[in-house]
Amino acid sequence: MDIQLDRNDTTPLYRQIVAHIMEGIALGRYPAGTSLPPERKLAAHLGVNRTTVVAAYRDLVATGRVEARVGHGTWVCADLMDDANAPPSIVWQTLFTPAAGRLRESALRDMMSAIDRPSTISLGAGTPAPDLFPIAEYREAVTQTLETWGAEMFRYGEVAGWLPLRRELAAWMAQAGVHTTADQIVVLHGSQQGLDMLTRVLVEPGDAVVVESPTYLGALQTFRGAGARLLPVPLDAHGMQIEILEQTLVRHRPKFIYTLPTFQNPTGATMSLGRRHALLALARRYGIPIVEDDPYGDLRYEGDPLPRLAALDTGGGVIHLSTMSKIFLPGLRLAWLSAPLPVVEAITMARQTMDVHPNSAAQRVLHTFLTRGWLAAHIAELRPAYAARRDVMLAALAEYAPPGMTWSQPEGGYFLWCRLPPGVRARALATEAAREGVSFVAGDVFSPDGGGRDHLRLNFTGNREAEIVEGVRRLSVALRRLQRDPVYDATETIAAARPVV
Amino acid sequence: MDIQLDRNDTTPLYRQIVAHIMEGIALGRYPAGTSLPPERKLAAHLGVNRTTVVAAYRDLVATGRVEARVGHGTWVCADLMDDANAPPSIVWQTLFTPAAGRLRESALRDMMSAIDRPSTISLGAGTPAPDLFPIAEYREAVTQTLETWGAEMFRYGEVAGWLPLRRELAAWMAQAGVHTTADQIVVLHGSQQGLDMLTRVLVEPGDAVVVESPTYLGALQTFRGAGARLLPVPLDAHGMQIEILEQTLVRHRPKFIYTLPTFQNPTGATMSLGRRHALLALARRYGIPIVEDDPYGDLRYEGDPLPRLAALDTGGGVIHLSTMSKIFLPGLRLAWLSAPLPVVEAITMARQTMDVHPNSAAQRVLHTFLTRGWLAAHIAELRPAYAARRDVMLAALAEYAPPGMTWSQPEGGYFLWCRLPPGVRARALATEAAREGVSFVAGDVFSPDGGGRDHLRLNFTGNREAEIVEGVRRLSVALRRLQRDPVYDATETIAAARPVV
Repeated sequence: MDIQLDRNDTTPLYRQIVAHIMEGIALGRYPAGTSLPPERKLAAHLGVNRTTVVAAYRDLVATGRVEARVGHGTWVCADLMDDANAPPSIVWQTLFTPAAGRLRESALRDMMSAIDRPSTISLGAGTPAPDLFPIAEYREAVTQTLETWGAEMFRYGEVAGWLPLRRELAAWMAQAGVHTTADQIVVLHGSQQGLDMLTRVLVEPGDAVVVESPTYLGALQTFRGAGARLLPVPLDAHGMQIEILEQTLVRHRPKFIYTLPTFQNPTGATMSLGRRHALLALARRYGIPIVEDDPYGDLRYEGDPLPRLAALDTGGGVIHLSTMSKIFLPGLRLAWLSAPLPVVEAITMARQTMDVHPNSAAQRVLHTFLTRGWLAAHIAELRPAYAARRDVMLAALAEYAPPGMTWSQPEGGYFLWCRLPPGVRARALATEAAREGVSFVAGDVFSPDGGGRDHLRLNFTGNREAEIVEGVRRLSVALRRLQRDPVYDATETIAAARPVV
Repeated sequence: MDIQLDRNDTTPLYRQIVAHIMEGIALGRYPAGTSLPPERKLAAHLGVNRTTVVAAYRDLVATGRVEARVGHGTWVCADLMDDANAPPSIVWQTLFTPAAGRLRESALRDMMSAIDRPSTISLGAGTPAPDLFPIAEYREAVTQTLETWGAEMFRYGEVAGWLPLRRELAAWMAQAGVHTTADQIVVLHGSQQGLDMLTRVLVEPGDAVVVESPTYLGALQTFRGAGARLLPVPLDAHGMQIEILEQTLVRHRPKFIYTLPTFQNPTGATMSLGRRHALLALARRYGIPIVEDDPYGDLRYEGDPLPRLAALDTGGGVIHLSTMSKIFLPGLRLAWLSAPLPVVEAITMARQTMDVHPNSAAQRVLHTFLTRGWLAAHIAELRPAYAARRDVMLAALAEYAPPGMTWSQPEGGYFLWCRLPPGVRARALATEAAREGVSFVAGDVFSPDGGGRDHLRLNFTGNREAEIVEGVRRLSVALRRLQRDPVYDATETIAAARPVV
């Protein structure tokens, strides 16, 4: 038994002996039945005290792989599970947490088929127009950013985000009437991450969260995944019905109120000024924070802008979330939040254990877009293009939709919210529409309370005008066929390879 | 009272009345004391049934902002909290979760001063050499990637990561002897995110996790933040002491074993082949997964490479984590994991609620680096450069360090692990060193069990050779001064603006 002891090693000698023999057993060098040398003999061979070997053998016996009997010596015993031939022994299902189960259930519940054929026109995803991406400016911004910053673009960065970018984002928000500071801003890897961070520091299983009904799917998934009790407050054309909210606040004392007040996802509804004031007053009276999710606020195509909740707030109770995904380039995963300092501190602490910091290069490229005025110019180009696409979709619906179908007329944002003719279910239509080569998102996906089965969400920003018309025409063909030949709800769902955004 | 009722609205008329009056109250249009019209009169004015107004007033009274008494009518009453002048009413401390408290405590516990003066030489951060960043190749890769992919670079992408990149990463791992498939790979926004995702689906408060002692700070923070019980297993020069591990597995049945087997952070130690086999055998026998964190595996400067645990594993029990941060550009936040399919499915579900998907543009740039062979070429340049920096640091220590100080001689990776002369504490030295213009990470930061107070971690990759020599010289000056004039441990800590990596 050729054991090399290292007397400079801090590991005690008896443990070095144990380590050597256990390795030998694991490697098959000492198969079952191998006799270990008598203690006295091994001690002499190694030049150690006998008590050292006694201690080593005692620990070896404790592992169960070595047996000792007085008068019979010490030997390696059979491994009850033959490692080489055993089936995989990790039973993952027994290891996952209840949270993993909730996350799974939440994701499965809202699954939709995202496997479109190439010829399918997708009116489903909430994507900006790829044909309008500012690619030339991006190329130029990378060049300028590399020239200005060099290696700094690629180093580890601050947890809350690169300070010059946070300053620019604060200035960007000031233009929208929200006065905040760089200290109150956290740069995010997508605004979903902001919802996740806020949920992590504010929501435990069983906590209540107010949501609009219907609302953004990703928020529902995050809150459900955290085990939150969802308290739905219905929407109408003027946003969340505040007079219903108060009774909810009194009864349930939620952790926060989650709202998309402007060009809401999925309905396109915008909360009236009166309700904005009333919401802030109520939230303040009951000491409940508001999470204002504002991905579409810069995309108004007509009518007067309304102030953000964060602009009206005087009580420090609004956490404002926004994103570059709807006005710039979604694949870059750039978003930010502005929040009271205790919240910023809590999520910055949490983030050190989550993803450490946002992409340094992407932050600097965005900084270049902001400081050169390219982002403002890009949005100024998007507004009329998206307004035209909305109008094209409205006109196509007016031309093709069957009687009994109605839809919203949003003043901005990404979506039309359609109510199907009586008796038609959105899930059944989705199956029919897939055959026809068009996809959308069925309304029940956005519902915290089982509603929306006769609604669908249509995106009007992601396709060119001709495709929008053709998509609506195909949808109407599918719908008329379904009305002639009704089927029950499709129950089959396919795992979402791409997110619903 | 000018109430506009919308009979096309799906909101019941009585609720429209409630909404209007509540908004008026919130806006100050109807201050306290305002009389509401008699029910019959308002009903006539609005052309609605009287019961509609009765229902509206009943709901208004329920809010507490309206009072009614028979014979006295109905009026707006004073708000008990005057919203306009009230102090901010959100008491954030009462809203944060226990998890937020743990995350905070975990981050604070391990805080170090990261506020270096510009002239300070940082031997602290585990950063690659900024002077060796492949910036020209990056510029060229962006150009080629834009030409090849255009707008696709900026669209929403797959939750697990872009499939062509996952294929390239699988091929990359195959070159290191790990056979996996694109389906088993998840692209991450930094490997910390992988630890966070695994923790989210595997660890509940009170669950046990095996860690090496000492180990990577970010892992300790994530596990502590999740409320895990840490089970430390000591390291020696040959890695985790496996013979101690078995008793831990028997007693505590941990959720997984977290190990950095190759060029460990912070010690630089590499687990011997025998121990690798023994670890796999043990983990398999007890049905415990292994999380193999492998940021430094490609950075061997001498000696024969050892197979990854994931390469030796035959039981499907190893989750392999790796990152581009140590071999490419840390600011891009690109890492990946390879895991059994049930784990991939669980974390992909969870990810939909976390950050949705990784940066599409960064993934495609990395794909270009991999397919052009530029990453392999870059690593081939890093190895001799880092080996030379390690040797320079070892020589500087031999020249300047006082008697009684010892240090490791790692065959690869990023770090030397130094033991201070008896009686000197690393935290006290950090204060003294800051005065001298050099920083490092005190060893206790990496300890799950209060050890490491007489150790420090020195990074040898992030600085040029002359700076390394000067840094070690300054450190030795600080150390000798501290030995002449000992002080107690510095207890003051400053919030870490930058992460310890």
